[in-house]
Amino acid sequence: MVSDLNEVFSVNAMHMKKSVIRELLKLTRRPEVISFAGGLPDPAAFPVKEVAEITKYVLETQGATALQYGPTEGDPKLKDELIAHHEREDGMVLKPENLLITVASQQGLDLTGKVFLNRGDTVVVGLPTYVGGLGAFNSYGACMTGITLDDEGMRMDLLEQELERMRKQRSKPKFIYVVPDFQNPAGITMKEERRLKLIELARKYDVLIVEDSPYKELRYEGEHQKSIFALDGTGHVIGLHTFSKILFPGMRLGWVIGDEAVIQKMVIAKQATDLCTPSFTQAIIAEFASRGLLNKVIEKVKGIYQRKRELMLTALDDHMPDLPGLSWTRPDGGLFLWVRLPDGFDAEQLFYEAVEKNVAFVVGSAFHCDGGGQNAMRLNFSYPTEDDIVEGVKRLAGVIAAHRAAPSDGADVLISP
Amino acid sequence: MVSDLNEVFSVNAMHMKKSVIRELLKLTRRPEVISFAGGLPDPAAFPVKEVAEITKYVLETQGATALQYGPTEGDPKLKDELIAHHEREDGMVLKPENLLITVASQQGLDLTGKVFLNRGDTVVVGLPTYVGGLGAFNSYGACMTGITLDDEGMRMDLLEQELERMRKQRSKPKFIYVVPDFQNPAGITMKEERRLKLIELARKYDVLIVEDSPYKELRYEGEHQKSIFALDGTGHVIGLHTFSKILFPGMRLGWVIGDEAVIQKMVIAKQATDLCTPSFTQAIIAEFASRGLLNKVIEKVKGIYQRKRELMLTALDDHMPDLPGLSWTRPDGGLFLWVRLPDGFDAEQLFYEAVEKNVAFVVGSAFHCDGGGQNAMRLNFSYPTEDDIVEGVKRLAGVIAAHRAAPSDGADVLISP
Repeated sequence: MVSDLNEVFSVNAMHMKKSVIRELLKLTRRPEVISFAGGLPDPAAFPVKEVAEITKYVLETQGATALQYGPTEGDPKLKDELIAHHEREDGMVLKPENLLITVASQQGLDLTGKVFLNRGDTVVVGLPTYVGGLGAFNSYGACMTGITLDDEGMRMDLLEQELERMRKQRSKPKFIYVVPDFQNPAGITMKEERRLKLIELARKYDVLIVEDSPYKELRYEGEHQKSIFALDGTGHVIGLHTFSKILFPGMRLGWVIGDEAVIQKMVIAKQATDLCTPSFTQAIIAEFASRGLLNKVIEKVKGIYQRKRELMLTALDDHMPDLPGLSWTRPDGGLFLWVRLPDGFDAEQLFYEAVEKNVAFVVGSAFHCDGGGQNAMRLNFSYPTEDDIVEGVKRLAGVIAAHRAAPSDGADVLISP
Repeated sequence: MVSDLNEVFSVNAMHMKKSVIRELLKLTRRPEVISFAGGLPDPAAFPVKEVAEITKYVLETQGATALQYGPTEGDPKLKDELIAHHEREDGMVLKPENLLITVASQQGLDLTGKVFLNRGDTVVVGLPTYVGGLGAFNSYGACMTGITLDDEGMRMDLLEQELERMRKQRSKPKFIYVVPDFQNPAGITMKEERRLKLIELARKYDVLIVEDSPYKELRYEGEHQKSIFALDGTGHVIGLHTFSKILFPGMRLGWVIGDEAVIQKMVIAKQATDLCTPSFTQAIIAEFASRGLLNKVIEKVKGIYQRKRELMLTALDDHMPDLPGLSWTRPDGGLFLWVRLPDGFDAEQLFYEAVEKNVAFVVGSAFHCDGGGQNAMRLNFSYPTEDDIVEGVKRLAGVIAAHRAAPSDGADVLISP
């Protein structure tokens, strides 16, 4: 081995951090722990039989191409299916040149970083935001500027202030990163008015928007919201999509939509990254979609998660102690909800107490680029069983009720002379 | 769209170039063109039936996990199979912590760049070398220093001179990149003595070695050579491997071997890149290998390619014109051979002449980081049919015989006043 690896690693690599979630999750692997921590889809919804049947068909009819290299841009048949999907969803008119098939949307985030970010560039993110987005942008040395979310998503007044502040310093962010539908982690959805305001600000300050949409199709109630990409229609938005939550994550298939020039640059970057996304899995999913099965599975997934969300919300209403400041979001879709803890509660301390009582969650600070979120937690309702959801919430409620909050700053002042 | 995309792209993205090969290959898509240009494996060797059978089995017995997220490090069962494979091949003793499963070895190259390269860092590469390596390192802004190859691989006297020159400037490369077995593009293999000298120099100058081994298992004659990784045994080497050439490329599965600390860093980098390699394809290949099918397929592939290599070498011997300086390598394995053209020949000009006669190759300059290689070409013998190999070499020989070489610099001087 070389004498000092730390002298050899890149600056970006030296700043890559082990995932806090990953480390904490190691504590939750005992089978008796009910985990609301992960973000895994429910395997009960996986169309295992259909995938087996279709794989057989694909190998019989196109084995030589399905196991061969494919174009970096992605399987043309799959791209056509996705173009049709976006047209059905949002009336969007896309060309194949607007799409790039990726190794799920995490690669979309990575390629976004690769194509846009120099070390020290600024990215605007939500407070809170998806931890994998923070990880991807951090791996290119970006500086994150966080904008607080309210119940309708990123606050546009604060965003405008920040963009104006940067403009006065003759600076601007490379892009604004949002998860507008059933946001991970907060479960919050941006209304159309907010989306339009975001587009207006992005145009005014000449900044791209990166719209991450892994859950968009999983709406259980409320009105369908057009994507920011569709509302814009001028190529100002890069859209990241994935089959991971609407179908299954085990094939790691996703796609990016964007202006042709952006997609072209991402194609070149992807060539250097992995040459192409697997032909085999693309051929399977293209066939799957062409048989009209995608929407069938999405309907099934929605049924399962809607029931689980109801169960979790009801259990929270029934069992959570009546403490000032304790509240949670009521997401219209997606996989997560967000619990705000009373003042003075420290979610990390609570996490260890919860694991001791065999229930787990993710601490809110993991989703904050500014060190905030200590008194919040993310709960996942897609993966645990229905029984576990009820039992787990009971346990969690007990832990919160029994938690001795650390004195808040205010209390400290009262006690100190 | 933002007002000026070029102001928004990262510096590295601005320097990413479209692949020369890719652009030239667009000219070769007419069905009447016999192409020696690509690097595709022969689909005749793809074990399509076995994959269909095993996929069915995997989905029936482990559908819920095969379609779910998996660990970033890779499927433990697949890692065990690979550990056994390396033990059989080279007597290596690896732990699971020494392996990371990747989206084929191009991702190994990408993660190597991500983990080690700052913009402006130096990487030592062969003249010529694998174009995808150049692309990956270039995408992180590396400066390439090329070391000429002779018939036994990278010249160690020149490498030592270069390392010494850099040392005097208080500098050193981040790593030395080699493809020691049946090199792409030159088809050259490093003998053990050369490998040991490389290790000695790498240790002396405290520089890592990146050993890219996509073809190692495909030896058709000559003596098995232990990998540089195995000869070193101290973690000074990072090994990149892939199933793309020994099995098929359509699942994009590969793996990196290295010191635990390097692999750990790559795992963190991979989390930000794509979270994990597809569970589905890993489960299939793990089962495939555990049934002992991997070596069976490798033997079949070797049989097919050995015959094709013989055919190409015989056709070259039989048909190439007797021109001073025209020569080619006789690879002991792999997929490629390398033709050196007579002085004054320009391979790019020859390429257009060849395409007109319905035969194609890759120009040598694509594999050179220093602008060299203009009078060389790479020929692939794995993908074209046996008949096409003979017919294509005849056409190519005709093109070379008919080519009017541009006057060399020397001739210019004689003609000029």
